[in-house]
Amino acid sequence: MSTTPVPSQSLLPLVIQADHLPAYHTPYPSRHPITKQRIVPFHISLQDFQNGLPPVGLITKPVLKALGYERALKFLTLSKEIKSCDIKKDGKRVECGACSECLQKQKQDKTQAAYKTSVLCVFFAEEINEKGKEARTEALADILNRWKAEGRFPETTKLWMDELFPIYACPKSTAFKATMSTARQPFGNVAFEMERAGVPLLGCQAFGVHMTAYEGEGEDMKIWIPRRSADRHRSPLKYDSSVAGGLPAKHTPLEGLLKECEEEAGWPEELIREYVKSAGVVSYYEIMDDGAILPNAEYTYDLPLPPRSSPTYIHPSPNDDEVDSFELLPVQQVILSLHKDEFKPSSAMVTIDFLVRHGFVTPDNEANYQEIC
Amino acid sequence: MSTTPVPSQSLLPLVIQADHLPAYHTPYPSRHPITKQRIVPFHISLQDFQNGLPPVGLITKPVLKALGYERALKFLTLSKEIKSCDIKKDGKRVECGACSECLQKQKQDKTQAAYKTSVLCVFFAEEINEKGKEARTEALADILNRWKAEGRFPETTKLWMDELFPIYACPKSTAFKATMSTARQPFGNVAFEMERAGVPLLGCQAFGVHMTAYEGEGEDMKIWIPRRSADRHRSPLKYDSSVAGGLPAKHTPLEGLLKECEEEAGWPEELIREYVKSAGVVSYYEIMDDGAILPNAEYTYDLPLPPRSSPTYIHPSPNDDEVDSFELLPVQQVILSLHKDEFKPSSAMVTIDFLVRHGFVTPDNEANYQEIC
Repeated sequence: MSTTPVPSQSLLPLVIQADHLPAYHTPYPSRHPITKQRIVPFHISLQDFQNGLPPVGLITKPVLKALGYERALKFLTLSKEIKSCDIKKDGKRVECGACSECLQKQKQDKTQAAYKTSVLCVFFAEEINEKGKEARTEALADILNRWKAEGRFPETTKLWMDELFPIYACPKSTAFKATMSTARQPFGNVAFEMERAGVPLLGCQAFGVHMTAYEGEGEDMKIWIPRRSADRHRSPLKYDSSVAGGLPAKHTPLEGLLKECEEEAGWPEELIREYVKSAGVVSYYEIMDDGAILPNAEYTYDLPLPPRSSPTYIHPSPNDDEVDSFELLPVQQVILSLHKDEFKPSSAMVTIDFLVRHGFVTPDNEANYQEIC
Repeated sequence: MSTTPVPSQSLLPLVIQADHLPAYHTPYPSRHPITKQRIVPFHISLQDFQNGLPPVGLITKPVLKALGYERALKFLTLSKEIKSCDIKKDGKRVECGACSECLQKQKQDKTQAAYKTSVLCVFFAEEINEKGKEARTEALADILNRWKAEGRFPETTKLWMDELFPIYACPKSTAFKATMSTARQPFGNVAFEMERAGVPLLGCQAFGVHMTAYEGEGEDMKIWIPRRSADRHRSPLKYDSSVAGGLPAKHTPLEGLLKECEEEAGWPEELIREYVKSAGVVSYYEIMDDGAILPNAEYTYDLPLPPRSSPTYIHPSPNDDEVDSFELLPVQQVILSLHKDEFKPSSAMVTIDFLVRHGFVTPDNEANYQEIC
């Protein structure tokens, strides 16, 4: 494992110097890819929205409606006068009376101008932000607990895990005005924490860790692939990354990985610390069963295991009930299993990234190489 | 080197299954990041634009103006009636007479409606497309040669290299209606070829190869870094990737890399074929000196050299005048040189990608890890 010291500088300025339209600057999605309804950005404060910072969440229409009754969160709204259509008939301008704008105008008091109101962003009330991170965490816990008790968004709340996830904001957010230098350190920019099941409802980014453990190199490589238990809610009996899990609050990615390695594969901390290598981030947007949008970022790790003759070699064995069994699959069989759709979708993405990084999937054998990279 | 056979299927469907808003589906930029002027998409045909395919190029305003006189390329335009503003004064609607729309309307014949025309897309004339790839290649060569002779866009044409670059289109393009199955194979979707210097003018994507050659592993790793010659037009005397170059027409990435390895480092084909591993794609948008936008995609490769005691080990030595000298730098010194801005920008991006993939830059030592991954 690398023992590279923590440098005081970031390498990001070099990326910005080379890339004048970096992907992470891409506007956040403003339309739901399936319902096509508008998605409203969720910010810490109105100033964060006005300063053009990236949002901390993406709110779909049903959730926006439910949030309208909550005092801890405020809406910035824009009202536009509805100018119903006018078409020419016998040289005079008339209203068609049939289009959605004309119909909405007819519904309202005709002596008054008619208005259409749009929510531009959602943000925490000032009295919450004044009290800081803990107040934001409590305010959202209060909302989510009530929704759970009332049976709202059952598809989401049935996945309740009593586990807090950290929600990060841009270090320039007003959330960190008193702690700017801390916020610029790795993991220093946690704006609040939130029950894991609620993260997709507010469209906040969820972080996870995925590790691919392997033996041998090149065409002789074999990868340790677990089969998920039959009783798992998502992707039962599908293949998975060697070790994978969500990244709870107060854990760095490596700390989260060490915990999962022990729980899922019985691999002790010493083995992982000696051989593991961090390998990047795989990001994707997931649409949940109830339409919520979950931006995911998985920290990826490789574990090149020592030879079997080494005293440090340890065979994986499931230590909890999430994994059914482990198989050591030749790399070509992993590729065939991917094509047969035998992997959990997110683990398929991470495994494809592994196969690209290790030169098994190449520009010569994959027609959509650029798209999958 | 991997000898993985070419599978008949692509892994892309698995990525689409996991990622509901994939980055490569992101709308192409429609505003220039510096001038803020509108960018017009360049398509093979009007149908490609109407079918929502990704464009093959991104055209800036000065180039659009010059293309207006070319018969080989057509514009799709939209004219909108200018409805100058009306504000209320003493209960009556009046025009302000001062805003840009009022001023433009005043310039035109007042008895007529005033119109504003926008170009929605640029595409090849039907008679060119009917004759296929060679006709498109000739039509653009004719335009670029004339512009060069007339001294237009001198910042771009001074980089003239007499080297053709391939321009790829979506396999669904009308360019491939007779050859759809070929277009779906790797590198089967070349829509036309074009002088390398002209690629940024039309904002087409340029492909390149970058290889990082190294000795040793972990903290003992050393990387072969060339210093660019003093007389190179771009980034003279800066550090570079071990071997890098543009990918000319009729070369796969590996074929292009083999050529560059021989020319720049004197590394023979046998050495590269035995040890090289493909490692992914690094993509970025570059703004040229004259404001043209160049989307770049660099195929990345790693070359883990054999031990010095091995009979196959070969020391790199510059074989052309692009490289001044090679240095074998410890990985920590490479990181320091990056921070000191001693690398050519695109090579810095590729080197950062290498450092991430090999676990030297980690979530624990880089605050903007997600952004640089």
